[in-house]
Amino acid sequence: MRMVDIIDKKRNGGELTKEEIQTFVDGVVSGEIPDYQTSAFLMATYFNDMTDAERSELTMAMMKSGDHLDLSSIPGIKVDKHSTGGVGDKTSIPLAPIVAALGIPVPMISGRGLGHTGGTLDKLEAIPGYKVEISEDEFKKQVKDQGLAIVGATGNIAPADKKIYALRDVTDTVDSIPLIASSIMSKKIASGTDALVIDVKTGAGAFMKTLDDSRELAKALVGIGKGVGMNCMAIISDMNQPLGNAIGNALEIKESIDLLKGQAPADITDLVLTLGSHMVVMSGKADDLKTARAMCEKTIEDGSALKKFGDMIEAQGGDRSVIEHPEIMPQAKYKIDLPAKSDGVVSKVEADEMGIAGMLLGGGRQKADDKLDYAVGLMMNKKIGDAVKTGDTLLTIYSNREDVDDIKDMLYKNIEISDSAEPITLIHETVR
Amino acid sequence: MRMVDIIDKKRNGGELTKEEIQTFVDGVVSGEIPDYQTSAFLMATYFNDMTDAERSELTMAMMKSGDHLDLSSIPGIKVDKHSTGGVGDKTSIPLAPIVAALGIPVPMISGRGLGHTGGTLDKLEAIPGYKVEISEDEFKKQVKDQGLAIVGATGNIAPADKKIYALRDVTDTVDSIPLIASSIMSKKIASGTDALVIDVKTGAGAFMKTLDDSRELAKALVGIGKGVGMNCMAIISDMNQPLGNAIGNALEIKESIDLLKGQAPADITDLVLTLGSHMVVMSGKADDLKTARAMCEKTIEDGSALKKFGDMIEAQGGDRSVIEHPEIMPQAKYKIDLPAKSDGVVSKVEADEMGIAGMLLGGGRQKADDKLDYAVGLMMNKKIGDAVKTGDTLLTIYSNREDVDDIKDMLYKNIEISDSAEPITLIHETVR
Repeated sequence: MRMVDIIDKKRNGGELTKEEIQTFVDGVVSGEIPDYQTSAFLMATYFNDMTDAERSELTMAMMKSGDHLDLSSIPGIKVDKHSTGGVGDKTSIPLAPIVAALGIPVPMISGRGLGHTGGTLDKLEAIPGYKVEISEDEFKKQVKDQGLAIVGATGNIAPADKKIYALRDVTDTVDSIPLIASSIMSKKIASGTDALVIDVKTGAGAFMKTLDDSRELAKALVGIGKGVGMNCMAIISDMNQPLGNAIGNALEIKESIDLLKGQAPADITDLVLTLGSHMVVMSGKADDLKTARAMCEKTIEDGSALKKFGDMIEAQGGDRSVIEHPEIMPQAKYKIDLPAKSDGVVSKVEADEMGIAGMLLGGGRQKADDKLDYAVGLMMNKKIGDAVKTGDTLLTIYSNREDVDDIKDMLYKNIEISDSAEPITLIHETVR
Repeated sequence: MRMVDIIDKKRNGGELTKEEIQTFVDGVVSGEIPDYQTSAFLMATYFNDMTDAERSELTMAMMKSGDHLDLSSIPGIKVDKHSTGGVGDKTSIPLAPIVAALGIPVPMISGRGLGHTGGTLDKLEAIPGYKVEISEDEFKKQVKDQGLAIVGATGNIAPADKKIYALRDVTDTVDSIPLIASSIMSKKIASGTDALVIDVKTGAGAFMKTLDDSRELAKALVGIGKGVGMNCMAIISDMNQPLGNAIGNALEIKESIDLLKGQAPADITDLVLTLGSHMVVMSGKADDLKTARAMCEKTIEDGSALKKFGDMIEAQGGDRSVIEHPEIMPQAKYKIDLPAKSDGVVSKVEADEMGIAGMLLGGGRQKADDKLDYAVGLMMNKKIGDAVKTGDTLLTIYSNREDVDDIKDMLYKNIEISDSAEPITLIHETVR
């Protein structure tokens, strides 16, 4: 079987067989298929898409190209959550303890941030001592003993995806639904979870800007998951403005702790409870979403989720006193308020630009090997729909440099104050 | 300017600027643009095509990537012919002397064969002593002194095209009109001719199988030529069955000599006279095709074209006695007739399969470095529309091996005898 014939079949709109997809993935991993053929194939896939069967085969072939975790020694239905990435999205951090506090094992394998979106692992590393890189055995033991762990990928997960992803980035084939979906799902299936809730972001700050595209991606992800027998569903949630008020590593840990104390903004709290409810229902611990949500709320009220978070921090080498003393995390030297220049209603807060501001302050990476400043970021004081008067603080810049005029300029350009604002729908729909 | 942005623009259907195309071509030649980006770009071009302006810019950028001949020291309007390639297509060989005999300079740069189509240079090398590789100065001197030369490319012609062509072959991006057209025209413009007649083949044995595709290619080629100020037109001619009766290097030289003696089959004679007429009109030596055709015919009748062919052979080191004694070329050991198995009318003679049979006998190359057997090939005795009786010779196999059962099987599979046959139109249309 020649790769050029496989490219030809895809280019001409044919459906690839399992064997053809396997030949492609094997050749990518072994290096037998040169990059120029892989990239031609990816571009042909961008144009001609893949059928459900092709997507499943590609996902499974990429998954099997590397290690996969066997979590069967951990009793219970293991439930994980994946997000397509947004600004201020610290959801995983309070979500895992809430669900785990209900006796549901949460084996969460997370990533780092690049560009305008932060990464869960980076945020957790703002906690003194917290280790995200632990061995596979330690990971399993912790999920068994504590009920949860949030770690980086251990071992050699989906090496085919790593190679393909690197090529997609430089050949303009990133935004292809079958390629995005197979990349995400190959890693999630390799992580060994039984059930998965996917949070597909939509809007200006998301990878998928329109609801239609987001729905298509959600369907692709759920379709692949179900195709391989995983219990899988998705919600589509808003990413026009940042989620919650905090953007920045230590600031988002603080907001996560606040959430577990019942003191976080409404949007992030609502999203966490919604995702948590779905996870609880999937685990079989509740029959319906209403019951599940009440169970989640109770873990906040009775402090069990907060305690679970502390247990996780301690198990992973971190200082659990951060819960009562968030100031043990790195603190910014300067707190600079951004005043409103006019009266009105906030009508736009561009999420991606807020994320880029956080990155430029040092809180995110422009390149993969950039070092992070955990202290810096933004704290939103006004969000879409809020009334403001001239001089009111729109947000506070947390910085370790005194001159932030560049950041201020960019923020002003991306926050609009008008006579009225379109209301934001946080959770658009559910895809099963 | 980043290559990924250029890919993105093409992928999203935008029109590339001259600068963007130049960046691409420069990067390909320098090696700064990696092959995987080039192949992604080629596939995006396959899907999204190029505008006339883009095609011209790509052609000129590829042309300028290498040497180009300056033929201005040769007086008169230089006229060349290019064919997209067919089986039994020895047209250039009698055509150049006919046109040159009328005092029109013909500086012809030809190619070698690969796969089922033969190459003009290979055919000429069947003549003892004939050299196709001569220096640029020798080439110019010969066109000035003799009025014609048929040679291989000298120097470094369109290196960008060489690199891109090699990638297209392995990334399934060969059959893209803008890429085919820019590849052909970059080399033809570099060859320094003033006017060009293009013979675009159509049918089962051609690269373009349908008249629509052939017309689209013809328009693309002529459009590019005109766009850069070259006097350029195309005809679309049939390539369902082989052209003339001879397939094979020495056999085709013999048929070319026969043509110059007025003794060749009607189809090849008609095509040569048609192409010749257009070249004569383009040169300004005749006002209309009818006059031009009569002038071409006269060069055959009065022997001036045959003499011109002899002059060219001699100038390029060959033995001009081949004209009277074609048997000085390599001769096949075995001549094996293929008898008809039924009565009827020949309704199909698959050109490409006849070409492959010739190649398998040793007359063509499967790989670029295969050695050729000049003696072997096929001589058609019946063509589409001819009535046959069982036992009549359909064609004669010229072979240097005794057992040609495999060839016979393949030939029988690709020659059909029916009750009637669709008439073949040799010349479909003219594109200006």
